[in-house]
Amino acid sequence: DSNLKIFALNSNRPLAEKIAEEVGVDLGKLSVDRFSDGEIQINIEESVRGDNVYVIQSTSAPVNDNLMELLIMIDALRRASAKTINVVMPYYGYARQDRKARSREPITAKLVANMLENSGVDRVIALDLHAAQIQGFFDIPVDHLMGAPLLAEYFIKEGVAQDAVVISPDHGGVTRARALAEFLKSPIAIIDKRRPRANVAQIMNIIGDVKGKKCIMIDDMIDTAGTITLGAQALIDAGAKEVYASCTHAVLSGPAIERLKNSPLKEVVVTDSIQLPKEKQIDKIKQVSVAPLIGAAIKRINENKPVSPLFKKVFK
Amino acid sequence: DSNLKIFALNSNRPLAEKIAEEVGVDLGKLSVDRFSDGEIQINIEESVRGDNVYVIQSTSAPVNDNLMELLIMIDALRRASAKTINVVMPYYGYARQDRKARSREPITAKLVANMLENSGVDRVIALDLHAAQIQGFFDIPVDHLMGAPLLAEYFIKEGVAQDAVVISPDHGGVTRARALAEFLKSPIAIIDKRRPRANVAQIMNIIGDVKGKKCIMIDDMIDTAGTITLGAQALIDAGAKEVYASCTHAVLSGPAIERLKNSPLKEVVVTDSIQLPKEKQIDKIKQVSVAPLIGAAIKRINENKPVSPLFKKVFK
Ligand SMILES: Nc1ncnc2c1ncn2[C@@H]1O[C@H](COP(=O)(O)O)[C@@H](O)[C@H]1O
Ligand SMILES: Nc1ncnc2c1ncn2[C@@H]1O[C@H](COP(=O)(O)O)[C@@H](O)[C@H]1O
Repeated sequence: DSNLKIFALNSNRPLAEKIAEEVGVDLGKLSVDRFSDGEIQINIEESVRGDNVYVIQSTSAPVNDNLMELLIMIDALRRASAKTINVVMPYYGYARQDRKARSREPITAKLVANMLENSGVDRVIALDLHAAQIQGFFDIPVDHLMGAPLLAEYFIKEGVAQDAVVISPDHGGVTRARALAEFLKSPIAIIDKRRPRANVAQIMNIIGDVKGKKCIMIDDMIDTAGTITLGAQALIDAGAKEVYASCTHAVLSGPAIERLKNSPLKEVVVTDSIQLPKEKQIDKIKQVSVAPLIGAAIKRINENKPVSPLFKKVFK
Repeated sequence: DSNLKIFALNSNRPLAEKIAEEVGVDLGKLSVDRFSDGEIQINIEESVRGDNVYVIQSTSAPVNDNLMELLIMIDALRRASAKTINVVMPYYGYARQDRKARSREPITAKLVANMLENSGVDRVIALDLHAAQIQGFFDIPVDHLMGAPLLAEYFIKEGVAQDAVVISPDHGGVTRARALAEFLKSPIAIIDKRRPRANVAQIMNIIGDVKGKKCIMIDDMIDTAGTITLGAQALIDAGAKEVYASCTHAVLSGPAIERLKNSPLKEVVVTDSIQLPKEKQIDKIKQVSVAPLIGAAIKRINENKPVSPLFKKVFK
């Protein structure tokens, strides 16, 4: 009989430990080290022969190191006769480079998909991909999980959901805002950015009613936090009572933390798809774990059950 | 008609510039940047449609960043309709992980070969691969260049070659020592390391005559410099007059520079396959450029001529 084994690489061990607990197994024994010159050294320290193996790795920063760690691990697992290799990528790095926006650009999200597929992965479990099209970059099964039910659960528990409006920070995010709004039974509004002429400041026009309301802005990721903090100010200026931001992936690079601190945002509700280093753990940022979702997905996949029922309702 | 274009990535621009000069072209216009979160952003800033493109990149430290830069560049070139994509890797990272030394280890040198091949490379030009077998990890043409003629040229010019003995620092390096010795018309000797019992210091036994001789130790790379500095001391203890070390790839990680400084080595003669940062440019280290060799190889490849005649004699 095949065992289910879960291995954690270095990007997000706390999440991997929680996922293993949800599934009810111990993390597999593994050493991931660096040689003196910085090359990655991996040794799997228990048999995986004939096993169904799940590897947990977010390809968040340092993205190239985390990606290579993952690919080297897959190489080692394949050569060690694992039965199936299932890659859990709570955060998929390079997802924004998903199309040629200019001539002679790479499509790195597809390169990453090719690398994973060619390395011998059987299945990918992803969470709130920047574009749903990335699923189609693979020819192997990709389970695309959704963090919205977990974020919704937080806002309901904290009493924020009543009298709230879910805000899409741009045109591209309306589908995502709709999904959260359905869980919260809230209306939606959209921030409509226009630049009247080149070199003139953007005008933020709010489509929908936010006066006196609690606003919940939702995006797949917050990176430098420019969009979300400017949007928050625009909502306050339009008479919003309180503004929350929410996203699945807390990339939070460059000026993000300073911007969030200085913004009128009341709370920034994120998941633990990306591990937050100490210096980014500010009071305003509230973390919701995706471990129950990913753990449930792994159990269902291992029992050959569909994972989609997990997104039909608020999670718990 | 197809143009020959050379592009430099970030690992070793000085070498790339010299190679372009040898070939007689300007480096192609390219921007290689980082997004705020550390993801690599590449844009090729001139047409490569129908061109024979050569990309110069050593996958030295930071190895994962340099490798991803290379793969993303290849992706962009392929999508931009380059006619052929030729990758020049003066240093091939992960080359030492070329076999399973223990159970459940990866073979990362093969993973790297697969990644390059699957990304659409037509040809690889490599230099003193750690193991010649790595050529067989590819199914595309790999030109395997040899640095020995250039190193030999240095020792001849500096008058070190007369009355010299070429030393292999271990059993595995005898073929390499023979090659250099042929160019120098010198005899060879071998350092024979034995560990009589576990947890007992190694004994260094020298096979061959070194008393009163100038000794030139040769290896493919010097990484932490442990082997080479211990070997140098053993040669001095055996009555050598002077000891030189020589290698193609100056990895020089961790304690290497301190060890070289404190060793009895007179000079450490290396190539510029890996760019030496300022803090590693100590007096003892002499750099010989591989640009004439690689430049000549590119010209011959582009004229459909074999590159092997380049190694039949001392280079200049
Ligand atoms: N890591 C990154 N940080 C910021 N922008 C990126 C990153 N990766 C790709 N992009 C750019 O973001 C754009 C896509 O973002 P979006 O319009 O939100 O899908 C493309 O033009 C990319 O060049
Ligand atoms: N970057 C590295 N630094 C030091 N040792 C390595 C590195 N990569 C691989 N190795 C190990 O070096 C051994 C191969 O070296 P060699 O015997 O000189 O071919 C293998 O056992 C590898 O595990």
